[in-house]
Amino acid sequence: MMSCDMEDLGFARVDLQRKSRQGFGEVVYGEGKTASQIAAILKSLDANAQRPALVTRLDADKAAFIASVFGGDFTYFPEARIGRLGENRPADGIGTVAVACAGTSDLPVAEEAALVAEALGNKVVRLYDVGVAGLHRLLACKDELKSARVVVAVAGMEGALPSVIGGLVEAPVIAVPTSVGYGASFGGVAALLAMLNSCAAGVSVVNIDNGFGAGFLASRINHLKSNP
Amino acid sequence: MMSCDMEDLGFARVDLQRKSRQGFGEVVYGEGKTASQIAAILKSLDANAQRPALVTRLDADKAAFIASVFGGDFTYFPEARIGRLGENRPADGIGTVAVACAGTSDLPVAEEAALVAEALGNKVVRLYDVGVAGLHRLLACKDELKSARVVVAVAGMEGALPSVIGGLVEAPVIAVPTSVGYGASFGGVAALLAMLNSCAAGVSVVNIDNGFGAGFLASRINHLKSNP
Amino acid sequence: MMSCDMEDLGFARVDLQRKSRQGFGEVVYGEGKTASQIAAILKSLDANAQRPALVTRLDADKAAFIASVFGGDFTYFPEARIGRLGENRPADGIGTVAVACAGTSDLPVAEEAALVAEALGNKVVRLYDVGVAGLHRLLACKDELKSARVVVAVAGMEGALPSVIGGLVEAPVIAVPTSVGYGASFGGVAALLAMLNSCAAGVSVVNIDNGFGAGFLASRINHLKSNP
Amino acid sequence: MMSCDMEDLGFARVDLQRKSRQGFGEVVYGEGKTASQIAAILKSLDANAQRPALVTRLDADKAAFIASVFGGDFTYFPEARIGRLGENRPADGIGTVAVACAGTSDLPVAEEAALVAEALGNKVVRLYDVGVAGLHRLLACKDELKSARVVVAVAGMEGALPSVIGGLVEAPVIAVPTSVGYGASFGGVAALLAMLNSCAAGVSVVNIDNGFGAGFLASRINHLKSNP
Amino acid sequence: MMSCDMEDLGFARVDLQRKSRQGFGEVVYGEGKTASQIAAILKSLDANAQRPALVTRLDADKAAFIASVFGGDFTYFPEARIGRLGENRPADGIGTVAVACAGTSDLPVAEEAALVAEALGNKVVRLYDVGVAGLHRLLACKDELKSARVVVAVAGMEGALPSVIGGLVEAPVIAVPTSVGYGASFGGVAALLAMLNSCAAGVSVVNIDNGFGAGFLASRINHLKSNP
Amino acid sequence: MMSCDMEDLGFARVDLQRKSRQGFGEVVYGEGKTASQIAAILKSLDANAQRPALVTRLDADKAAFIASVFGGDFTYFPEARIGRLGENRPADGIGTVAVACAGTSDLPVAEEAALVAEALGNKVVRLYDVGVAGLHRLLACKDELKSARVVVAVAGMEGALPSVIGGLVEAPVIAVPTSVGYGASFGGVAALLAMLNSCAAGVSVVNIDNGFGAGFLASRINHLKSNP
Amino acid sequence: MMSCDMEDLGFARVDLQRKSRQGFGEVVYGEGKTASQIAAILKSLDANAQRPALVTRLDADKAAFIASVFGGDFTYFPEARIGRLGENRPADGIGTVAVACAGTSDLPVAEEAALVAEALGNKVVRLYDVGVAGLHRLLACKDELKSARVVVAVAGMEGALPSVIGGLVEAPVIAVPTSVGYGASFGGVAALLAMLNSCAAGVSVVNIDNGFGAGFLASRINHLKSNP
Amino acid sequence: MMSCDMEDLGFARVDLQRKSRQGFGEVVYGEGKTASQIAAILKSLDANAQRPALVTRLDADKAAFIASVFGGDFTYFPEARIGRLGENRPADGIGTVAVACAGTSDLPVAEEAALVAEALGNKVVRLYDVGVAGLHRLLACKDELKSARVVVAVAGMEGALPSVIGGLVEAPVIAVPTSVGYGASFGGVAALLAMLNSCAAGVSVVNIDNGFGAGFLASRINHLKSNP
Repeated sequence: MMSCDMEDLGFARVDLQRKSRQGFGEVVYGEGKTASQIAAILKSLDANAQRPALVTRLDADKAAFIASVFGGDFTYFPEARIGRLGENRPADGIGTVAVACAGTSDLPVAEEAALVAEALGNKVVRLYDVGVAGLHRLLACKDELKSARVVVAVAGMEGALPSVIGGLVEAPVIAVPTSVGYGASFGGVAALLAMLNSCAAGVSVVNIDNGFGAGFLASRINHLKSNP
Repeated sequence: MMSCDMEDLGFARVDLQRKSRQGFGEVVYGEGKTASQIAAILKSLDANAQRPALVTRLDADKAAFIASVFGGDFTYFPEARIGRLGENRPADGIGTVAVACAGTSDLPVAEEAALVAEALGNKVVRLYDVGVAGLHRLLACKDELKSARVVVAVAGMEGALPSVIGGLVEAPVIAVPTSVGYGASFGGVAALLAMLNSCAAGVSVVNIDNGFGAGFLASRINHLKSNP
Repeated sequence: MMSCDMEDLGFARVDLQRKSRQGFGEVVYGEGKTASQIAAILKSLDANAQRPALVTRLDADKAAFIASVFGGDFTYFPEARIGRLGENRPADGIGTVAVACAGTSDLPVAEEAALVAEALGNKVVRLYDVGVAGLHRLLACKDELKSARVVVAVAGMEGALPSVIGGLVEAPVIAVPTSVGYGASFGGVAALLAMLNSCAAGVSVVNIDNGFGAGFLASRINHLKSNP
Repeated sequence: MMSCDMEDLGFARVDLQRKSRQGFGEVVYGEGKTASQIAAILKSLDANAQRPALVTRLDADKAAFIASVFGGDFTYFPEARIGRLGENRPADGIGTVAVACAGTSDLPVAEEAALVAEALGNKVVRLYDVGVAGLHRLLACKDELKSARVVVAVAGMEGALPSVIGGLVEAPVIAVPTSVGYGASFGGVAALLAMLNSCAAGVSVVNIDNGFGAGFLASRINHLKSNP
Repeated sequence: MMSCDMEDLGFARVDLQRKSRQGFGEVVYGEGKTASQIAAILKSLDANAQRPALVTRLDADKAAFIASVFGGDFTYFPEARIGRLGENRPADGIGTVAVACAGTSDLPVAEEAALVAEALGNKVVRLYDVGVAGLHRLLACKDELKSARVVVAVAGMEGALPSVIGGLVEAPVIAVPTSVGYGASFGGVAALLAMLNSCAAGVSVVNIDNGFGAGFLASRINHLKSNP
Repeated sequence: MMSCDMEDLGFARVDLQRKSRQGFGEVVYGEGKTASQIAAILKSLDANAQRPALVTRLDADKAAFIASVFGGDFTYFPEARIGRLGENRPADGIGTVAVACAGTSDLPVAEEAALVAEALGNKVVRLYDVGVAGLHRLLACKDELKSARVVVAVAGMEGALPSVIGGLVEAPVIAVPTSVGYGASFGGVAALLAMLNSCAAGVSVVNIDNGFGAGFLASRINHLKSNP
Repeated sequence: MMSCDMEDLGFARVDLQRKSRQGFGEVVYGEGKTASQIAAILKSLDANAQRPALVTRLDADKAAFIASVFGGDFTYFPEARIGRLGENRPADGIGTVAVACAGTSDLPVAEEAALVAEALGNKVVRLYDVGVAGLHRLLACKDELKSARVVVAVAGMEGALPSVIGGLVEAPVIAVPTSVGYGASFGGVAALLAMLNSCAAGVSVVNIDNGFGAGFLASRINHLKSNP
Repeated sequence: MMSCDMEDLGFARVDLQRKSRQGFGEVVYGEGKTASQIAAILKSLDANAQRPALVTRLDADKAAFIASVFGGDFTYFPEARIGRLGENRPADGIGTVAVACAGTSDLPVAEEAALVAEALGNKVVRLYDVGVAGLHRLLACKDELKSARVVVAVAGMEGALPSVIGGLVEAPVIAVPTSVGYGASFGGVAALLAMLNSCAAGVSVVNIDNGFGAGFLASRINHLKSNP
């Protein structure tokens, strides 16, 4: 079945209307789909001029298969487990997106957020390993944080980073809990709860390890025009 | 102790620097504070030109006491349990903030978000009782939703509203789970989890029943200028 | 031990009475049983004229062993992890069973429901990848949904699909949460809770990933006669 | 705002289309609404010929107020906390609905289910205090159970009743966990989980204490016609 | 260090006093210990005349190593993952221990209970696959159940078996939840909660999959003498 | 309806067969039943010679009503919230039942266990306030513990008492977690989990605050005869 | 029963040995004990020269009764819900104990910690309302924090305070989560988890709202002598 | 970027100030970092005279790589999964640190605590396999426990060890729950909750399996000087 705004592949109905409706084409969630299913969806998007097209949670094996289909047009970022068909949009966001993370182990999630924001047309400033147990490291980045139009704050364990940043900046803060930790971190639940209970106003939260969602939302906010 | 940016009341250190640092003065969380403690904090804020000053989670008894201190300058909104000292800021936000809620029982939380956004200088459009089990009610509001610069989506029970709205609009969606429901809603946990797992991109979440946080963040986003 | 209504294999007491008591023979739960145990149970059912006999949660290795025992009479459906001895019952259900799922990743569970319903004698309409974040895809299927006698709605993540469908149709809706998702989906708990709290009346829920249960129940409902 | 299918009361948008769309008018969830809000909604429904109209989770005080508005047309059932405006629909359901409950303490939830089913036009058979720890009491009701077109099984504590009934009958079984119990019953969670994990096929589950949902769904199933 | 009642192996202090203090020697919990550690502990027990000595949760690899140390004196039961050094105690228990389980998948836990009870000197009656969804299978075993001095009831999923048995017999019932199930069984939590909330009196519960604990306790009860 | 083994009161089916089937009549769970319902059930039991009849979880108001019905034949124990119609059975249990509790706050649950055991014909030894943080208090009771035929160990907070007692005695230990505690005790969950994970063999567990269940089971064990 | 080290009051065994064994007499946990029980325990402690004696979690009514027994020797601190018989020990601790709390609502728990530490002979420095969302308030206290020998850090909501303090000081930090918050704070669980997952080394945690435990442990550490 | 107190490696900002600020250099959390990342951080620490430098949660493969970089200066402790660059600090702690564990399976966590304490300059006394179900084993160590300046108590399963030790000694007790156990131990949650609810005063808790945190804190306490 083929309609003006949707292609039915049997296992998937590709939403071709989304780009006009929401400003960016459908992003493919790679987990639980086979490599061929992903490739077919990308082809459908590509045939409808929806580049760049992104795939998240893509493991290396599937990425290799997809790369063999699309060749050099497809780029794979192994740390962030993101695949991208086509080039980044031009960086037409209004300000910068700051992506801060608490520890080196949070890097994959932070990179997912940063790469998504870049693909969607944003200039990104990376501020990594600035956890609250060594405040001087975070305070050394105060200027970059204060000059960003939106901040993505990524942290596992006790998830305190967004609260401290939220108290320093005027920009909206998107908090991303990560599953980094062990024992009573319960796969990121401790950080998630901390962020939901942040005493700093201006903080909102996305799902555990959802770097994609944070980067996507940051881009939306960073593209908000003055005349509505 | 009195310094340039903080007044120490013994039981509280009023953050007088916040208005310049973050664009709006400290908001008082009313729960767990006595009426006199709240009044003292409001006086300190008032003496430092921080009107309007807001108190959230304020019950009627404490509100009556505070009203007796400040007279007509203090307004109490019983449904939203909010008190406000002084008048709303002029509505200088760039676009409108749409506040949608799923059912009549979610109204107190939605009103908290709406009143906070209004106090902070935003034009608010209220779209109430538009739950997903009667889609035509929601679709009838499509235009108001699409023309908003930021949407606050409030829902209890299964918390599906932000996902459906998130698929309709291009604006950032702030999801607020409410504790409306019973049994396996677990005081709002079901709605919270649903919102964190929203398949619609562009959605972020605040704490259960945190209308204040949503209204505050909506205002921040709605005040973002074009030149960063 | 051999009685009229039960065969004792030592490790299992095959319920031979069930077909007459409940209209369909015992369905074998494949997990936690060895391939030989399953084959022995199938033989016992077969010897008592209980075809078709179904095995659920059957992995490919065990399926291969069982196929080597029964040959062409045994069919294995790898995506749904179902094995079937014998042919589907004739499609003597009164109406159609619609099986809808939210995303491509939910397909295995949806297929389990669909194949079970077909084995038990129902005509099935598959409506896949109709998640609520792209409402137009779901609304495009409105007619198939409205004309079904019973609907199975399968979704992971925020599990909103049954609520939206429940508001559109008059038929009973059987909601199946899936473990699709990550982080705060907690292996399907988010979807499960959302479905239990559905604000749409006429919705009931089965266990996470329990496509079998949904297909079985759908068949029971679809076979209900007018004269009780 | 007044349209053909919805009346906007400000705090509520009454869904007047539902009766034609889904066969029964909107049911009012009484919790979290004021008595006047409920009365206004009932008036709107009444003005649109949607009798009988039901209110669930209605406490005695609100009921008294509403009775003062509608007089003898309004009936309140204190044990089930249900209010009904108008008379029951004629009992035009195809078969009987059996409502079984495990213990005397589960009675309020069972009555909610039974009264809703009766209001919606079903003949109901009540089988109370038939918990599995005294099997002979349950087995004494075997005939009523087997002759029902659909069974509602209500139980708190360990929630085993639907599993046992599910093994005895061919009809669909709607399981309702109740919050009866203490300690590790966790307000009905133990019963809910037991029912979701029922080893009997043909069982589906509604929310804890959701007698309304079970009665409503039972009615839907019991009204399914032979020609689809 | 060597004292009269304890041997210190560095990594373990073997409790040599337990046999006289509590009637049976220390039982070795195999998980998290290396094969050599287990062998060393067994040697210490053996040197102090504590046969039979049991090892629980012993995987096949470690068992093979231990067998190579002790030769024919060591027996391994792979399904129950139990190792035994020496022979079973003579069956000097006063009555029989009935071990019932709900499904074939619960067999490993049931066997652990049965083998432990036999090792400790009890006559065991096995009643397997008697789940409550096929009551006639359970009722067919009524006599064996009623004549047992103590009953061990093993079940996963909804864990209803002990409640039903508890209503049939006068003997103490030891309930063992198993991790059999999926989704909302949460690794046995559903069964555990059901058993803790059993409405049948005379039922107590051990940890999930703790067949050993049930068999051990059953033996203690079965050895209670008349003159205290 | 009146049959030989059950009286149907409408809201309850009194199990008159239980005494002969299980050695003691039905025990009435008082919570969630009205005083009149309880009185009616007691009358039915009394009319069938089932004295003593027990009511658990009975608050003082209902007890007063029942006492007004039965006069001096009815005794109420306010701390344990137990009512008893008739006198204790003669103490024909074989040995003694020791009831130990960790702290003074656990006393109500311990008394419930002790009174039930006494009503059912057992000699009870009370050992109160012997928590593990003051070991010398527990060790001072070693002889009473060791000479008991069965031990009931009641504790809230960290619930360590059964583990320590379980290492000291040869008798079966019935562990009763209580809801005594705050914060991370989660209403008794901490104690419950500790007891389920006891490293001492011979320990089994009943529901939180279920003194009744422990006393009942202790009596069953204490009445087990030598010739089975 | 009266022995040299324990007085048995029936409902309690007062541990008179504790002062010599552990440096301070038994502290009475007031919840779940009657006023007379508490008074009796205090009398027993008093008779054995164990002043000061503390009662925690003491409500105003019980306190009034106890004050009527002991007169001016008994002091009640309503905010912290602590009662003290006798005077504070002389402040013989080696350094100071700093008690910091994040918000005004955390004050009762912080005061419980501070008063306990003072009663046990410590000089206490109170640093209140220094939450991480206004870092300058916390950093203004850096000197008091750095010069303390042990720090108690009290916080509800996201519980980030101990992590930030833990990165600033060399002293041991005792983290106390409070139940301050709402929604996803789950009565203090969010703060508790955050503290257990603190990325700052040198932090340990006590139960939610356990100001007593923190003050007690702080005192122990502050009294540690140089020669062990 | 290179500053006086922090080296920015891109993926990590090595905190070189910590040694002077807090008495010991940064400890590297090995999980989620690559072997090369860890080696680079160690080099940075080493270049700034921060020996000994510790890596925790280091698996054997990464350790082998690091050893190949640093040669004999790097030691790996496989059981505790700790790597150490350089030698232990001289044992300049004031007293001894006792590390007790309940069972042999808890050994890895206990060793992590012990090795960390030794690296940081403490004399450690190991008391292993002293679980509360065999009290005589624990009581045999009473002298070592009582003479320690601080005690680390490590236990899985029911986590009772710290409560019992806390009642015996005057020193601060650091409780470490381990993930040893199965079923309702929930990966250490049962032990964690037990320890948080310990009725013994003077006990505080670190994260599940956090031997490092316990050893680190023990060292801090053991190095507290008399003159503050």
